Amino acid sequence: MKKTYLLGALLGAAVAGLLAAGAPPVPVLQKVRQYRQRHERALLADFTQLLAIPNVAADSAGLRRTAGAIAEMMRQRGIGGVQLLGAATPGVPPAVFGEVRVPGATRTLVFYAHYDGQPVNPAQWAPGLSPFAPVLATGALSAGGQVVPLPAAGAPLSPDWRVYARGSSDDKGGVMAILAAYQALAESGVKPTANLKFFFEGEEERGSPHLAELLGRHRALLASDLWIICDGPVHQSGRKQVVYGARGDVNVALTVYGPTRPLHSGHYGNWAPNPAMALARLLGSMQDSTGRVTITGFYDDVVPLTAAEQEAVRQIPNNDAAIRQGLGFARADGRGQSLSALINQPSLNINGMRSANVGPQAANVIPTTAEAVLDLRLVLGNDARRQVAKVVRHLEQQGYFVTRAAPTAAERAQHPRLVQVVPETGYNAQRTPMDLPLARRVVAAVQTTVAAPVVRLPTSGGSLPLFAFKDALGATTLTVPIANYDNNQHAENENLRLGNLWDGIETMAAVMTMP
Amino acid sequence: MKKTYLLGALLGAAVAGLLAAGAPPVPVLQKVRQYRQRHERALLADFTQLLAIPNVAADSAGLRRTAGAIAEMMRQRGIGGVQLLGAATPGVPPAVFGEVRVPGATRTLVFYAHYDGQPVNPAQWAPGLSPFAPVLATGALSAGGQVVPLPAAGAPLSPDWRVYARGSSDDKGGVMAILAAYQALAESGVKPTANLKFFFEGEEERGSPHLAELLGRHRALLASDLWIICDGPVHQSGRKQVVYGARGDVNVALTVYGPTRPLHSGHYGNWAPNPAMALARLLGSMQDSTGRVTITGFYDDVVPLTAAEQEAVRQIPNNDAAIRQGLGFARADGRGQSLSALINQPSLNINGMRSANVGPQAANVIPTTAEAVLDLRLVLGNDARRQVAKVVRHLEQQGYFVTRAAPTAAERAQHPRLVQVVPETGYNAQRTPMDLPLARRVVAAVQTTVAAPVVRLPTSGGSLPLFAFKDALGATTLTVPIANYDNNQHAENENLRLGNLWDGIETMAAVMTMP
Repeated sequence: MKKTYLLGALLGAAVAGLLAAGAPPVPVLQKVRQYRQRHERALLADFTQLLAIPNVAADSAGLRRTAGAIAEMMRQRGIGGVQLLGAATPGVPPAVFGEVRVPGATRTLVFYAHYDGQPVNPAQWAPGLSPFAPVLATGALSAGGQVVPLPAAGAPLSPDWRVYARGSSDDKGGVMAILAAYQALAESGVKPTANLKFFFEGEEERGSPHLAELLGRHRALLASDLWIICDGPVHQSGRKQVVYGARGDVNVALTVYGPTRPLHSGHYGNWAPNPAMALARLLGSMQDSTGRVTITGFYDDVVPLTAAEQEAVRQIPNNDAAIRQGLGFARADGRGQSLSALINQPSLNINGMRSANVGPQAANVIPTTAEAVLDLRLVLGNDARRQVAKVVRHLEQQGYFVTRAAPTAAERAQHPRLVQVVPETGYNAQRTPMDLPLARRVVAAVQTTVAAPVVRLPTSGGSLPLFAFKDALGATTLTVPIANYDNNQHAENENLRLGNLWDGIETMAAVMTMP
Repeated sequence: MKKTYLLGALLGAAVAGLLAAGAPPVPVLQKVRQYRQRHERALLADFTQLLAIPNVAADSAGLRRTAGAIAEMMRQRGIGGVQLLGAATPGVPPAVFGEVRVPGATRTLVFYAHYDGQPVNPAQWAPGLSPFAPVLATGALSAGGQVVPLPAAGAPLSPDWRVYARGSSDDKGGVMAILAAYQALAESGVKPTANLKFFFEGEEERGSPHLAELLGRHRALLASDLWIICDGPVHQSGRKQVVYGARGDVNVALTVYGPTRPLHSGHYGNWAPNPAMALARLLGSMQDSTGRVTITGFYDDVVPLTAAEQEAVRQIPNNDAAIRQGLGFARADGRGQSLSALINQPSLNINGMRSANVGPQAANVIPTTAEAVLDLRLVLGNDARRQVAKVVRHLEQQGYFVTRAAPTAAERAQHPRLVQVVPETGYNAQRTPMDLPLARRVVAAVQTTVAAPVVRLPTSGGSLPLFAFKDALGATTLTVPIANYDNNQHAENENLRLGNLWDGIETMAAVMTMP
């Protein structure tokens, strides 16, 4: 086995060429693939069972049930030392831990995924879909895919079919790929080349507010050479990728205040200030027409990419035009820079915006408040608190009095412009150096599973609490994602392409058995 | 009676002085007041029964039930010729008509109110309140008023108590005041001085799209010397007012388009254009920081106030500072002009704004669309279609391709900025000259019921389809409102102060019996 993998590591593109030419897969990959092919229906059943358990932050009991179900899946697969870390802290979803000690192994890998999902608004899901009632569809619904019942046992499942449910891709799919990879190895009699630890988090979508503390309390238990983070999508070209870092993230909720009661827009329009207009002007002041953020100092602090990182970015396939066409917009932000380049900059996004009502419920009123949620992505060098402070300073520069709570009567009487700012706990970006030997091994292992060159991405556009691992454990992280890029992650109609789950199992198994 | 009212008309402020000094009310007013005092509980029961019937545009059956209930109330009060006008048109709420012919009367007055209400979002109402479950409170809930059960029969009802329900003030309260005034006169043996007609509309809050046509079809039936429009609030000072005109109104729904599916704000943030930001920039481009609309030509077309109208505006009590303090904001829009002056200008208001989600449902996404509903108020000289065209031209000047429907794939591919514009049917403003003799009589009649000088308002800030009456019937209109100004009209927690209903009954009775 070692020999096989050494071959993969040494030959790289040559192996890819052999696979593309129809050469037989290397033995471990073959065993894993055969196991999956023979057990597709059972794996899918395990997955949909897991997806049916609600996993949003507002549903603390649902998160605990999810954690319990995962712990049970681990025990069934023979994983040892299964326990819920932090389970004693009320209101905080525990992390699920387990491990497999491999006699003679000198290296320890921790496999990470998170089992919590983004909030859901079931009304926004497609007709017939519900976030926690997973269904199978013959393709992306947005591209004409149809919801279908599970075919008869024995009938093949097309890899282009998709499972629709919250968490399918982000990130119960990660949990499933990791556990199924171990299961396939174990039941095929293949021994991992490293001690394996498993760590499944339950607060990632909330910004991992308790992660650093939890890691700090379990330093010995979590000691490792490398964390493999299975979260996020593969490259938009469909190529597998290894990601060396991730942007940090911090959300900020803004509320602008108008009159204390909603006013008739005729009797008071022109005179009573409209908070929706005030918020529009405020948000509009934060960005120019090309998407460049105009907040003073917003792009300061950024640590530039190294030469190797810049070269890796240049090698990333650019299919921006195709993605843009698929998403139906004629011009991207960023003054012509590529998506791959732009995600190496900090960003400011409006997640949502609301004042009074639109549509059939719209009434002729001057609203009392207007709200927006900003999402700030951070790159290496940015600090979450410092980035929020820049936004706050910008609000003040626009003449706003900034409060942390709803304004008091005295504040209302004194300040013509009032905005409440509520920042969430965020975290900073992290980047693992591209020349790290273990990182090179992971890339080579992933490359053994696939013909097309693996994309090496210095920074993921999406965020992961990688900073916490570095900070609390001194740990090194590499992200190896599996989801299809068009997975509606974080939104309604989230889905995972079956082929991506199958490929993901092979990817994880390759890393577990790399030389 | 004639003598009494003549006295009122001639002496004006002198009569007011007498009343203020505790002189006995004039006989008709006395009879109406006594009737009301003896029947408060029954009147309140009739009112709450009417309020319990849903009256929003989306509930066509509820509107028909409301119309039927009003027709029944009219028959019970001995009003003749009761009929539902336009009842044969499917989906269009009928107008309720009835009349009282007075032998010897040479003048005909039509009393107008509307029975439909603004849309409701029950979730936004105060705990324990529901739009169509009217309750009584000991004062404004926002000022510490408490919901109370009806006191025991015989116990007095405080005039400061309020009825909470959709339509309580806008404008089932108008229907109730008119019908109760006629009832009080009839049951007190007082003969009106004019033939009375009653016309209760069911589509006012939708912009009266079928009113002009309906009026045109019933010209003979609706022939009159004057329409008395009972809608809107009395002056914020608490003084009664007579209003000579109203702003016109037209709503415009805007939808700005982003990617066809919601995107992960990390993986695509900085690159995929955010429609919420685009909408914010667009709305922000429409107004400066003082509330002045910056759309080209927005204030053109306006017919200036006459010298008499300007003088009337100057005489309106200015309690802007007190209102502003009550509403909790430190600075009004309009560069220091008074509220009374500002409502004589066209306005642009954001009724509501929405993109994706805020609060607990907010997710880290780039939304697919962002929506806003604009409310344009019009003054004499403005034309609804012309005003909408100015907004559309402004959107185009900002680089937007304007569509009337969701953009096609071809439009998305061609135009970087896309906005859908859906204007509703609106109507223009109208103003009745202040020197009209019959208008002077109405002011004098209202003045007999109250000590403080009646406010004469050239134009109401709120809108009424007065243009339709002029256009379709050549009719003259005067508005005589009754509601408290702090009635949450058009919003959650709409309410009518009982004292305003009682005063309104006296106002309507005075006009029905004016010399």
